[in-house]
Order: sequence, then structure tokens, then C-alpha cells
Amino acid sequence: MYKAGLIGVTGYTGMELARILAVHPHIELTHATSRQESGKKIEDLYPFLRSYKIGSVVISDYNAEELARHCDLIFLAVPHGTAMASAGELYAKAKESGKSLKLIDLSADFRIKDPAVFEKWYQIPHSQPQLLQKAVYGLFDIYEEEIKKADLIANPGCYPTASILGLYPALKNGIIRNDIIIDAKSGTSGAGRKAQTATLFCEVHDNFRPYSIGGKHRHTPEIEQELYLAAGKEIFVSFNPHLLPIDRGILNTIYAPLAADISAEEIHAVYTEFYKNAPFVRVLPLGQLPETRYVRGSLFCDIAVTVDKRTKKLLITSAIDNLARGASMQAAANANLCLGLPLAAGINAAPVCP
Amino acid sequence: MYKAGLIGVTGYTGMELARILAVHPHIELTHATSRQESGKKIEDLYPFLRSYKIGSVVISDYNAEELARHCDLIFLAVPHGTAMASAGELYAKAKESGKSLKLIDLSADFRIKDPAVFEKWYQIPHSQPQLLQKAVYGLFDIYEEEIKKADLIANPGCYPTASILGLYPALKNGIIRNDIIIDAKSGTSGAGRKAQTATLFCEVHDNFRPYSIGGKHRHTPEIEQELYLAAGKEIFVSFNPHLLPIDRGILNTIYAPLAADISAEEIHAVYTEFYKNAPFVRVLPLGQLPETRYVRGSLFCDIAVTVDKRTKKLLITSAIDNLARGASMQAAANANLCLGLPLAAGINAAPVCP
Amino acid sequence: MYKAGLIGVTGYTGMELARILAVHPHIELTHATSRQESGKKIEDLYPFLRSYKIGSVVISDYNAEELARHCDLIFLAVPHGTAMASAGELYAKAKESGKSLKLIDLSADFRIKDPAVFEKWYQIPHSQPQLLQKAVYGLFDIYEEEIKKADLIANPGCYPTASILGLYPALKNGIIRNDIIIDAKSGTSGAGRKAQTATLFCEVHDNFRPYSIGGKHRHTPEIEQELYLAAGKEIFVSFNPHLLPIDRGILNTIYAPLAADISAEEIHAVYTEFYKNAPFVRVLPLGQLPETRYVRGSLFCDIAVTVDKRTKKLLITSAIDNLARGASMQAAANANLCLGLPLAAGINAAPVCP
Amino acid sequence: MYKAGLIGVTGYTGMELARILAVHPHIELTHATSRQESGKKIEDLYPFLRSYKIGSVVISDYNAEELARHCDLIFLAVPHGTAMASAGELYAKAKESGKSLKLIDLSADFRIKDPAVFEKWYQIPHSQPQLLQKAVYGLFDIYEEEIKKADLIANPGCYPTASILGLYPALKNGIIRNDIIIDAKSGTSGAGRKAQTATLFCEVHDNFRPYSIGGKHRHTPEIEQELYLAAGKEIFVSFNPHLLPIDRGILNTIYAPLAADISAEEIHAVYTEFYKNAPFVRVLPLGQLPETRYVRGSLFCDIAVTVDKRTKKLLITSAIDNLARGASMQAAANANLCLGLPLAAGINAAPVCP
Repeated sequence: MYKAGLIGVTGYTGMELARILAVHPHIELTHATSRQESGKKIEDLYPFLRSYKIGSVVISDYNAEELARHCDLIFLAVPHGTAMASAGELYAKAKESGKSLKLIDLSADFRIKDPAVFEKWYQIPHSQPQLLQKAVYGLFDIYEEEIKKADLIANPGCYPTASILGLYPALKNGIIRNDIIIDAKSGTSGAGRKAQTATLFCEVHDNFRPYSIGGKHRHTPEIEQELYLAAGKEIFVSFNPHLLPIDRGILNTIYAPLAADISAEEIHAVYTEFYKNAPFVRVLPLGQLPETRYVRGSLFCDIAVTVDKRTKKLLITSAIDNLARGASMQAAANANLCLGLPLAAGINAAPVCP
Repeated sequence: MYKAGLIGVTGYTGMELARILAVHPHIELTHATSRQESGKKIEDLYPFLRSYKIGSVVISDYNAEELARHCDLIFLAVPHGTAMASAGELYAKAKESGKSLKLIDLSADFRIKDPAVFEKWYQIPHSQPQLLQKAVYGLFDIYEEEIKKADLIANPGCYPTASILGLYPALKNGIIRNDIIIDAKSGTSGAGRKAQTATLFCEVHDNFRPYSIGGKHRHTPEIEQELYLAAGKEIFVSFNPHLLPIDRGILNTIYAPLAADISAEEIHAVYTEFYKNAPFVRVLPLGQLPETRYVRGSLFCDIAVTVDKRTKKLLITSAIDNLARGASMQAAANANLCLGLPLAAGINAAPVCP
Repeated sequence: MYKAGLIGVTGYTGMELARILAVHPHIELTHATSRQESGKKIEDLYPFLRSYKIGSVVISDYNAEELARHCDLIFLAVPHGTAMASAGELYAKAKESGKSLKLIDLSADFRIKDPAVFEKWYQIPHSQPQLLQKAVYGLFDIYEEEIKKADLIANPGCYPTASILGLYPALKNGIIRNDIIIDAKSGTSGAGRKAQTATLFCEVHDNFRPYSIGGKHRHTPEIEQELYLAAGKEIFVSFNPHLLPIDRGILNTIYAPLAADISAEEIHAVYTEFYKNAPFVRVLPLGQLPETRYVRGSLFCDIAVTVDKRTKKLLITSAIDNLARGASMQAAANANLCLGLPLAAGINAAPVCP
Repeated sequence: MYKAGLIGVTGYTGMELARILAVHPHIELTHATSRQESGKKIEDLYPFLRSYKIGSVVISDYNAEELARHCDLIFLAVPHGTAMASAGELYAKAKESGKSLKLIDLSADFRIKDPAVFEKWYQIPHSQPQLLQKAVYGLFDIYEEEIKKADLIANPGCYPTASILGLYPALKNGIIRNDIIIDAKSGTSGAGRKAQTATLFCEVHDNFRPYSIGGKHRHTPEIEQELYLAAGKEIFVSFNPHLLPIDRGILNTIYAPLAADISAEEIHAVYTEFYKNAPFVRVLPLGQLPETRYVRGSLFCDIAVTVDKRTKKLLITSAIDNLARGASMQAAANANLCLGLPLAAGINAAPVCP
């Protein structure tokens, strides 16, 4: 059993990681940290984990030395800025004790390769540029080999995961022109577990709303960075998120002009070929469309391609579970890979539907 | 009190009309028809209307002669095809008895001016072309004067209402180019009250999904017809609907390339001016965005304009209550106008939030 | 138009009062107070009220003198303890300026007649015992005449409203024995609009849970006080609330042993007779059961009686909208009565279903 | 790998069984039957199972001979009446081919030991009395040894599972008197996947309602049968169900008078002792209460005991996932036991929260 630490257990991504690791056959959570909940058992914070071994882990304050000495692997589930600082400390402490350490960062801190772009969008300077260079973007469908060798993995954002997987084959194969609109919809767990009026039940339930539209959302540069790598040229997207009254799930409807006269069947063949070795991307048969419930609680990204012949556009619809594939289960998959375990170890449960 | 009939009381639009008319100061529902529920009182079908006078109205079988003789106004809340046939009969019977009759048709039968376009999208021929010519499209924000004089009103579709109101000022004023995407999301009452597995609670709740995307939805030609009138030239839209796990509400996110270098402030001024005499369109201050809860149970259409400077697009977000503004309350507003009543009579209740 | 003030506009009861007063024909909200939101317009806090006159009312800090001088009527929508202090101040200021003033208190401060009982359950002493004596319990179905003459009205709690109306006729007529269980379920708006993790969307949605069961909930003494008056003897109830993943609505399932061999039909007749002059209590026909949606947004309390012959129990199910009948619309009804207006003025909208 | 058949794949219990067996390490679904969906693949009916081996199983018509010859184990997920007839046929065919066969019946057909009681509540005679005698009630926390040796297992009802587990220790130990009220609340998946207006999204969402209260629900005799065995004397319960706007989950609030002056601590100790060897019953620490989300997608039954000192009652709150513990996952657990597999094989996933 590998020993894992989890820095920041109180948010939804921390909660989901605890849930996944509760039954992981090869990774055991031995350390969980939180300032507010220090001293509590995990089962007191998360009663649904009572009776699992993980439930009796006592939450502690963050202590870099302790974590670096005891853990083979650490998940960082803390806000951006905090994550990069912790990463620096943890590697320093690990080095002192001559220990190798794998870090999976669920924040945005190591996703943007260019520190200037990071600083522009996140409004803080990057304090760990040398680590940034080492970090591998943890989209395992694309970067599996790099992840296997990585020490530091930048776990992708939820919206970027669904956006990039949806667009990659089309851009790689020159199917669409560079005028991309992503109309994204996310479940409310994506907004975090912090107490705030805006995400109270009565503010979200039986409601639907856009937010941060028109080029303001921080996932924009992350998406554009990876699409640049797919297309081999600079790509601009109009990324526009909305808040869904559901717990889990992202569904993106992506619009782009077709670059040439190409049929839906041909595009479908391109996608199927591109993802033939990606067990957790399901390219749906033509005519079927993704639904968030079909991926709930799972690592799947479901993708459909649809051609609007009247307006000569490609419509790509992609769905993930924002907490699972969009955060913690993807982190566990990345942990599996960088520890030399099978990709699906402990995370192959079927989607929970209904 | 004007006497009103309601043909097709069992669907959600019929239910909503009954709810509205229960407290209308000038229109009294005297006749309600349904094949399946004939013989029941309205309060037995809809227990929430118990203790209102409307509750004791006995539902009857459809009888054109009876309806035409007794009613000043009839709402048709039946499927397309059936509606046009009934309209033909009702006018014939009214003529026989020398009576004037106002019809508000909530189906699609009289919305599309061109019978060939209607036939292409609805797959049935139009049996009442002479009535079609008389019909007025019931978007009262645009056609108030025509509606006041009309006998037959084609009540707009739910998606078209939110789409047309959102796009009209921009097209009228040449602000955008003709490459329009409408990413539409609707509450489940829009799918009707028919027993079917696809709209069972457990198939919709905690789920989100696209449907009929890529140019397949029948509201496309209705939207394009009215936008043509706004723009003075043919307009094509890529209209793509999604199903929300909410009861009521449509929110459209509309994308179009800016035709020129124009600021958000200027566009906002254009919209404000255009709707200055439209009491039920609320152009939101820049920076605010519509939410479905803010229009729930009301006649309002809330509209926001947002400019995505990075991609030079105009984003228009518009929200309505699909049952109220998108169907039955709009029908009641049209009834008010064509009967010579004030637009807002009986339908000025504030949105129900939360 | 009577001029009304609203102290505490930021909670859900304040929001609902603003919504109701937005279209009230005889009461105009002229003053609204809030510490946090002072300086904002109501339409900025509650965008759904934009375009109503009330929307442009500027929220101010609490100022007893100003309020007492300008308002005919003041709603107190602040926490217990704060409410009684304000009431004392407002009456003092009104007296100074020789003005009569009606107060409707939505908190618990004036509901419990016995200050010792109040202190036991609310853990604070009662600072206004002389006002407590003047206060009338605002359950207008029972106390209409007293309310018409009252200056200070203790607006009933949400659970008590549904509980007392459900039990009153049975206790008044000696139908049941004194071993009453109230299994109560409330929508989440009852938990307030304060930012807290426990009522975040993802903690409530797709979930159901009991809370404060086993005699701990503060509505217990309020219910028992009124049931004592109904029965003419001390009554003890086991009151046990649960949290529903809905916005609005309370449904109580009340269990009591039958005192004698009496049929459902006889009990139904007793209830029908008791409420024959109560337009907002609907005693359902035998065999029908209440649902929260059937009273949503309305002043109705729906009540059904069911006899469990196997176990010789009376089951009373009662439903209200906790925000409307259980708080703000009941407050508006009480305001109507004490101002000499018709009970239903401005609050007769039909329930919003779906 | 054991080979399993599933008769009746189209309902929610069939769907959930398919989901569970998709990843079961020792049981493979090889046959699935349905009249309406015959010829389809499981992944076409349930797209969330695409890419699992089970997804490509072709649904066939029911053929007793084929099923009995190829399957080691068959799950019956068909309505009562149909299930007993199939069971008779399947055993006859198995006998012909000299094959042993395990049957897990998810219907009510083999739960009620007394055919007269069955007939009274289900309104049909029992056609297989000899099988009824052999059948073991599949509540494995109580009957584990019997289940291990059984060929025919009557899988418990959803409400009975939560009710019986909640009451068993109290009745076994004489803690409560025989005046029991079960106020039960269930998620909508319990109402089945049949197309009907009453369970459409817009009829259930944002709503809560009682149904079949007052001694009418068919789970009553099943609960009383098992409680008789616990108490050693006849027990009557007033069982009263309600419909929750959630997908999965049952929460029962159970009321009974305390038989003696006993503390919450003592009762808690009794429960803890009683379930010390039951890994899927979690007796919560005093002060904690169950929530449906904490057991979602799992085999757990969470139980809390609370004493209402004012009214001298024991309150037992118990929660399960009605589809998992209340039906299909309990069926899989029973399959594990009667096949000689570990109880938790393939079904130990942690609850899905949120």
C-alpha cells in the first residue's frame, strides 16, 4: 500500500478524494489536513465514510515535514497560491530526508506553462517557476506516458477536461476553423463547499444562470494552452459557463465552423480512432448525445459529434462528472499512473444512474 | 366579465391558463374541454385550484357549437394539427350564430406564415390557409397594435419568445452579423404532461442533457421568420436546446459576431431604447445576468448584453418562464389586448423567488 | 395607501414580504432596513423586483424614530431578541410623536404568552413583558376578531401554523387523546438565507434528513400553548422536524390515538364545519391528501383527515407554504386585518403549480 | 465466474442490478430479458454502461429453458404474480436438466410466509406454496446463515428493510411497547420506471406528499411478520409512506412508547451490541442522525436512536438507499452469500456524496 496525504480535506474535491481512497486497493490515506477541522476524525466530518478504515484517520494541521516524511504521494486540494507554496515546501522537506515524493495538485497553480499568462489571469506571481517546468498536465488520455514519469502533476480543471477532450481530435485533424464557442454548464459542487449565500440551496435549486461569461473565466487560458498544442497554432475560445441545479456534472456544448465539407460519419470515425486507446473516453454512436447522469461518479468523458448542415457547424457535446473526472477521480487516476499502478485501479465503478 | 373557453385543459399550458384565469378580474373560464378528463371538475384534476370559482367548472368533451355560442374568447391548448382543425370549426360555428370570436392558439399552427415552411418542419399540410393569413403573431412587445385588432392570435413558442426578444434590437440595428448560435435551456414543463419514461422524475432530476441539436428543432423556422422581419434579410440560426432539471424557465445564451467595433455600453443603450415602452422586457444593467428564478411565474423577459472582446462576439442572455411568458401568461396578455383590456390585467404578480 | 416599513429585508421572509408588497393594492413599502445592504436599492438585492416601484426603494440602516414617524405599519423580520427590543423602541418613538403604529413581528418574541416558558426555550429573558401582554397571536383563522383590534401581532411560526390548524378541530371536539406525534417536513427556505455550509445546495439537494428531533425544537411550546387553548387542557406533543430538498413548503403528518370509535366521515364533517368560515383552510375531500406544491406561493393550509383502523389512530396531514402562509403572506394577511382591509387584499394569487 | 440471468431488465431495480454486475468480480450477467426491449443491447437501453462487457449483452425474450440451462443464478425483477410463475417454471426446467439453480426474487411473491396474508394484501392467490416454504427472507443482517444455504431468496422490500433493521433490537430486547408508528419517506425511484403522469418530473420536483397512508400500503404485513419474529408476539404498525423529490433514499422516522425508564445511552448500547457483526448496519453515535445522502449507492443502513423524554418515546431514524440496500444491492449481497462468496464482493463502494 502506498501512503497518501491529502492537504485540504474540507472541500468537495477533498471529500471526493477521501471517498475514492476509502476503497482504493493500493493507496491508503494516512494523512489529511485542515485548519478548521483539525482534531476531528474524517468520519465525523464525513459521516458517510464511517466504518471504513479511512473514517478513523484524524485530521491534522498542515505540517510539511511530517507529510513529506511519511507519504509517498500527496494530493493538494487547496486554493491556488497556497498549493504552489506547499509544493515548494514539501519537495524541500522530501529532499532533506532523501525521499522521493509524488505530488498531485488539484489547484490551477501548475497548469499554465507560461508564468506571465498565469499571473495575468490569477493576479498573483508564480513563486515556483522551477517546479512549473517539471509539472506535467494530468490529462491522461493525452499525456499518459509523461504522467507515468512525472513527480508533479497539474491535475486539469473540470471545464478544461471536458473542453479539451471534446475539441482535441477536431483540432488535431484540422476539421474546424478557429472560431470556437464553448457553452459550458456545471453542477454546483464545482462552486466549492465554502459557506456563501450564492450557493445556498434556495438560491440554486429550480434555477439556472450564466456567470463569468464573455471571456472572464480563468479556465480560458488553460483550455487555449492545450488546444494550441492540439492544433499547432494559437486558438481562441469564447468560454461561457453556467450554473446547473445538480450536484455533479459538466456538459459542454461546443460550436465551431467546419473547415471543409466533411460528413458527420467521417468526423465520428476520426474521433473513434483518436480515442481508441483511451478507455475512459466514450465516443457515442452518431445520434446519441451525452447526459451528465451517464457519467455520474465515474471517470468517463462521453463525447458526441453532431453536424448542423444548415449553418455548417460542428457541434461537440461532452460530459463529465466535475468532481470525479473533473477533479478527484482524475487525480486518483494520475496517482495510479505515476505510482506504476494500472490506470483504473480502484476507480472503475460504473456510473451511478439514477 | 368576458367568457373564455379552454380546449385542452390537461397539459401544462392548460393547467397554467386555468391558474391564471382563476384570479383574472375580467375573464372568466366557463368552458374547459378534455377527452380523458371529461366529467371531472377542474378542482379534481388540479387540486390546487380548489376553493376558486374555476375549480367547480366541469370539464366537458369538445363541442365546437357549444363553445362558439357561449364564449367570447377561446384558448386552444391542443397539439398542432388539431388546433387548426378546431379553429376552422369554431369560426364556422361562430359565423353561423353571427357571433364574434377571438381565438388564441397556443400550438404552432398559425405561427409560420409560409404554409410550405410549416409543412416542411411539421410534416403535415396546412388545412386553414385563409385563417393563417389573418393570424397575428402574438409577441406583444413587437406587435401590440396588430394584436389589439386581431381575431386570431398565434401565441409564440417558448424558445422563440426568448430568442426573438433577445435578438430583435441587435438585428434591427445591424449590430451583429448573420452567424447566430442559440444555446437554449428549458425547464421540463416544456416537454409536456404526457406520461412517458423520458420525463419521469428519475430520468430528469440531477441530470442535464441536450436534445434535437444541430438544426432539428421545430422552433428554428419560427425564430428565423421573425428575425428576418427584424433584420430585413434572411437570417439563419443554429438553434440547440437542452433539458434543465427545473419546472419552469428558459434561459438562452445567444452568440453572434459583432458587425462593427461597438461597445457594450452602446449596445445596452440600443436595447434600452428599443424596449422603453415594453413593460415586460427588462434590459438588465451591464454586469447583471438573467436567472430563470427571477422571472418565475411572471410575464417578464429579462435580457442582458455582454461583449466578449477577445473573440469579438456579442453574447445575449435572455430568460423567461416557459409556461408563463412562453405560453399561457403570454396567451392571457394577448387575450387582454384583443379584448381591449389593459395588457397587465390579472397577470402582474411578481416573480416567485425562491 | 398605507405606508409600511420592513426591518430586516435580507432574509427569505423579508424577501417574500417585499415580493408580496410589490403588488399590494393598499400597502406600500416605503422603508426597508438592513445593516449589511444599507444603501442598495431593493432591485439590486432582489433583481426579480426590478421594474416594480418597490424595486427603487433604497435600503437604509435601522432608525426607530424615522420608521415610527413615517410608517403606519412595520414588519419585524429580524431574529428573536432583536425583534422585541425594536418593538419597544418603535412604540416609544411612535408615542413621542403621537402616532398610532401597527407592528407585525415575524420572530418568536411575542408568540409565547408565558415569559418563563419563552426564557426556557429561547435562553434569553423577555425584555418587553408589557408588550407581550398586548400581543395577539396572528393565526387569523382562529383569532380574526382579536387581530382586527390589535396593535401588535405575533405572527405564528411556520411549523406551528400547519400543526395548530391541523389539530385544532380534533382537540376542540375531543376526537383524539393526548398522545400526539407531529412528523414535520419543511422546505429549506425555512432555514434562512444566512451563509452556512449546512444549507448549501450540495448538502441539501437529493438528500433528506431529520434534525432537532426528540423534543428539542423551539416551536414545541408555541404549538402546545395553542393546543392547550383548543383542548382546554394541557397537551404535549412530540414534534420532530425534517429538512426537505424543496424551496417552499411544509407538510406535517400528525398522529394521535382516537378517543372514541368515530368514523372518518364524522371527523371530516367536524373539520368542514369548524373551518366553514375560514377561506384559506381547505379541508380536502376524504381520500385526497395534501401536497406542498398545491399551496406553493399561497395563503392556503390544506388539511386531510385519515383514519388508520388497524391501529385506531387519526392521521392528520396538513400542508402550507412555509414562506407564504408560514411567514410573510400570513403577516400580510394580519396587516390587512389590523388595518381594516379585506383579509385577502393583494394576496389571493392562486398556488404556483408546477 | 458465476453466470447470472436477470428477468426484467427495464425497471429501476433491473437497471441497478446491471450497474452492480457490470463490475462484479465473480458474477457475470449473461442473460437479460425484457418483452419491450428484446433485441437491444444493454448499452443501448442504459448508455451509462457502454464500454463495460455487460453493455454488449443482448436483451432477449424470457425463455425459461434457456435461462435454467445456462445460469447459475437468476434475479427476478418482475412484478409480483409474474415472479412466482417464473420461479416455478425455472425450477422445473432446472430439474429437467439436472442443474442446481439459485433464485433471488426482488418481488413480494415469496416474502410473506402465510399465503392467506399474501392473498389478502396482494389480491391474488399464491400459485407456488411449496416454493414459498423453501424461500428464505433475504435480510442478511438477521438471516445470514439461512441465506447461505438457500436456493430461493425473497429479497426484502425497501421500506421493510429500513423498518425492520430499525426496530429489531428494540423489540428483541423489550425496550418499546406495541404501539409503533413508521413515518416513511422514499425517493421516487421506488415508484418504478413505468411511464405515468404521477411520477413525471414536474409532478414530483419541488414537491412532497404522503400516499397510501392509514394502513393501506402492502409493505405493512411484511414488516409485521418480521417484527413478530423479533418480538415473539404479534406487532401492529401504522406504516405511512411519503414521496420525496430525490432519486434514491429512504428515511424512516419510527415512533414507539418506551416500555420502561431506559436511557438513550442504554438503548444505544443494545443496538451497538446487536449489530456488532453486521458490517452494513451503522449504529450512529448518539446525537448524530442519518441522512439519505450518507448511504447513497451503498449497502449501508444507518440507524440512530433518540429518546424524547418529554413524551417518553423512542425515536428510531433509519436510512437506506432504496435501490441499493432496498433492492438490487441487497439482492447482489444475497447472491454472494448463497453462492459462497464474501458478503461484500463487488458491492463495497463508498456512498456517493454529494
